[in-house]
Amino acid sequence: MSENAFQDYYPAVPGFVYGGLLASLIDCHGTGTAAGATYRQQGRPMDSEPALRFVTASIHVDYLAPTPLGVELEIRGKTEEISPKKVVVSVKVHAKGRLCVKGRVVAAPMPGSMLNLIKGENKNE
Amino acid sequence: MSENAFQDYYPAVPGFVYGGLLASLIDCHGTGTAAGATYRQQGRPMDSEPALRFVTASIHVDYLAPTPLGVELEIRGKTEEISPKKVVVSVKVHAKGRLCVKGRVVAAPMPGSMLNLIKGENKNE
Repeated sequence: MSENAFQDYYPAVPGFVYGGLLASLIDCHGTGTAAGATYRQQGRPMDSEPALRFVTASIHVDYLAPTPLGVELEIRGKTEEISPKKVVVSVKVHAKGRLCVKGRVVAAPMPGSMLNLIKGENKNE
Repeated sequence: MSENAFQDYYPAVPGFVYGGLLASLIDCHGTGTAAGATYRQQGRPMDSEPALRFVTASIHVDYLAPTPLGVELEIRGKTEEISPKKVVVSVKVHAKGRLCVKGRVVAAPMPGSMLNLIKGENKNE
């Protein structure tokens, strides 16, 4: 779960959170939940090596109600399916107790070639 | 169709466009295509009043291949279905001729209450 309150500098209808930003939020929360669930399934602490990282294979988002700006948003991810090839996570975004957005993320383990790119970047820090 | 080249200041795997940004791009292109198709269906020029605006009811995005940064992306929307209640648009994103991302946007006419908010904002400019 994470909580975010967005302010009004995003491109959207005045007073409401831009849908693309909500999709991004669900995307990040989905891949994060997928990694967390896989650590748990493997009985490993989350800071243990090798790091588990996921990319988004697909995302579906239903915008049920306009999401207000400036209030805390509650984002909860639930692992629906977990296998070595993919993790399916459903995500719900509530604002003031109201369900505004529902999402479904299919996350896949990050390919080795991408993991190497990330490792290369961390070395340069 | 629109073309965009993203640079490397987005949060993602080094060298690739962040998936949430691609979802945003598809979202914007989908609602824009929905509006354009509806003007055309009504035989109206695109700058005629009342303005037609759409919100996203749902979006689905399939990430087929990593989308490279720093190259021109070609984004094409195709209207699949058009009715007074909704317009369905499929969107494809190509990079260097390779299909990287496929999306489907269900767009709905913007509710009157939201249209009034946008009109209110334009008055203040």
